[in-house]
Amino acid sequence: MGEHELITALQELLTPRGDRVVRWVGDDAAVVRARPVQVVSVDQMVDGVHFRLDLPGVTAGDVGHRAMAAALSDLAAMAADAGEAYVTLALPEGLPGEAVLELVAAMEALAAATGTTIAGGDVTRGPVLMVGVTVVGWADEESALLGRDGARPGDLVGVTGPLGGAGAGLALLDGRVDPAAHGIPAATVAALARAHLRPEPRLALGRALRAAGAGALMDVSDGVATDAGHLARASAVDVEIALADLPLAPGLDTVCAALGVDAAEHAATAGDDYELLLTAPPRAAAAMPATVTWIGRVHPAATPGDGRLRVVGPDGAPRALAGYRHAVG
Amino acid sequence: MGEHELITALQELLTPRGDRVVRWVGDDAAVVRARPVQVVSVDQMVDGVHFRLDLPGVTAGDVGHRAMAAALSDLAAMAADAGEAYVTLALPEGLPGEAVLELVAAMEALAAATGTTIAGGDVTRGPVLMVGVTVVGWADEESALLGRDGARPGDLVGVTGPLGGAGAGLALLDGRVDPAAHGIPAATVAALARAHLRPEPRLALGRALRAAGAGALMDVSDGVATDAGHLARASAVDVEIALADLPLAPGLDTVCAALGVDAAEHAATAGDDYELLLTAPPRAAAAMPATVTWIGRVHPAATPGDGRLRVVGPDGAPRALAGYRHAVG
Repeated sequence: MGEHELITALQELLTPRGDRVVRWVGDDAAVVRARPVQVVSVDQMVDGVHFRLDLPGVTAGDVGHRAMAAALSDLAAMAADAGEAYVTLALPEGLPGEAVLELVAAMEALAAATGTTIAGGDVTRGPVLMVGVTVVGWADEESALLGRDGARPGDLVGVTGPLGGAGAGLALLDGRVDPAAHGIPAATVAALARAHLRPEPRLALGRALRAAGAGALMDVSDGVATDAGHLARASAVDVEIALADLPLAPGLDTVCAALGVDAAEHAATAGDDYELLLTAPPRAAAAMPATVTWIGRVHPAATPGDGRLRVVGPDGAPRALAGYRHAVG
Repeated sequence: MGEHELITALQELLTPRGDRVVRWVGDDAAVVRARPVQVVSVDQMVDGVHFRLDLPGVTAGDVGHRAMAAALSDLAAMAADAGEAYVTLALPEGLPGEAVLELVAAMEALAAATGTTIAGGDVTRGPVLMVGVTVVGWADEESALLGRDGARPGDLVGVTGPLGGAGAGLALLDGRVDPAAHGIPAATVAALARAHLRPEPRLALGRALRAAGAGALMDVSDGVATDAGHLARASAVDVEIALADLPLAPGLDTVCAALGVDAAEHAATAGDDYELLLTAPPRAAAAMPATVTWIGRVHPAATPGDGRLRVVGPDGAPRALAGYRHAVG
């Protein structure tokens, strides 16, 4: 497949949604009718750094889905409506055109599921596969958005779903854990691999959390131990999280036993789950979506102006987490 | 310089401009007060494909400037006002932190010169230096923008400045032409190298062309022979360009003589000049900015619905251009 043929085939995969996109593929730039407040995030994923296309069980479609999901997750984390996505691809020589089409088709499928229009892009050669995604979200007013800086002392801290599944899935995919040797059922393997390869951006949930009275919101991309620390600093509060209260992905215990690591610590540090981390005043807790699990509480900063994360172990004692984010490969 | 230290140093280089950017670096996404119509373009440049950082005379600052200029040029080509830029960097192991700071400082300098705010980004590791730039421009109404589809039979075709300089500069930088062996003065070498490394996005000129009555507009990134063909197809007209009328960059003749190529053909095909290509009705020509050179004319499509480019040589005969865009390296 030649370069021109590939670009044409890629464009044919894409569909504009709604009436906001006035010009798109085929001019110098896309033209979009704006809403009053624009939300923008950029993300890139590099083969060998953020994913490994050479692993058995990893497809180009997985890479496309995950890159688009990670970018859209940043819009979910602001409680914004998804709008448009712009995609850059650097393609190494050996990558077949069919794989590129599969990658973009998976992006387009997730775009369709979230009401996003892929409205432009740039395709070049490169030494390894790199996928860049710029997402644009919209809101009607600034107050409809949530940031990391809205946590207040007395708030509860919650997450929208189980943690650690993506990290465990990666350990299965990259061969650090052999499921046969540890008696891990095929269905568990498939579910954990899927948590890593096909995360879902929580766009509707982000808006529901704001409507229900959440004060701060962000997505869990680096693991709650890192991300809750960012939230604490941005809000200038101390955030206390109880390891024993973290919701663990089903099957995480068996994979962590095989890895010889503590499941709750893994859940706090492995990252890439793309659930949402929120804070809310206790009076708002009852109105929150049922998927929220409460994992901690917000305190005044012990050092005023310098917010910190405190992690508490099952024994009630402070726990220092050595881990933080597992690197791929 | 550690990763965290580098990110902090990069953020300290950046300044928000105006009051449109509500949230930026440090949250999940940037938040910007929108104007009614948004214009978006994404561009990426890869070491070894779009530039070569190993060439003597090429600095990291040149790479940053050129990537930002190419992206902003797409906004100029729509006659939009520049708004925000979002930058992705993939950094190879051996690249010193100082080079990364120089790269981003050059981007910030061009952003400052054009009223652009660098409002976010993503920095990761990668096998080679890759720079991605998403630019967002704004307009108050759709009719304030120009596309490639506005050329009409009878229009004149113009360009905003000399062509071929960037391609000649690259030939000097990558050693295909030895200036000493061909008696090319140092000032000419410097000016041509600068045309390649430090192109200027024609943002003010783009808006002036629209105000003066231009009908179609695009930037000359792939060379007029390619770009005017895109314009012809988008407008469903035939575009005739006279090689003899192309404005040649000063010194281009000596470099092309050394390369053994025709200077006008080189000017038509080398690309990367980032001047603007426009069409306008003859009655509007007198009001156009003085830098515009008229190089051709628009005709009805010989095959209705299928616009084509026709290049005419100095002898008045049709000329097929073998060349098209020189690849780097």
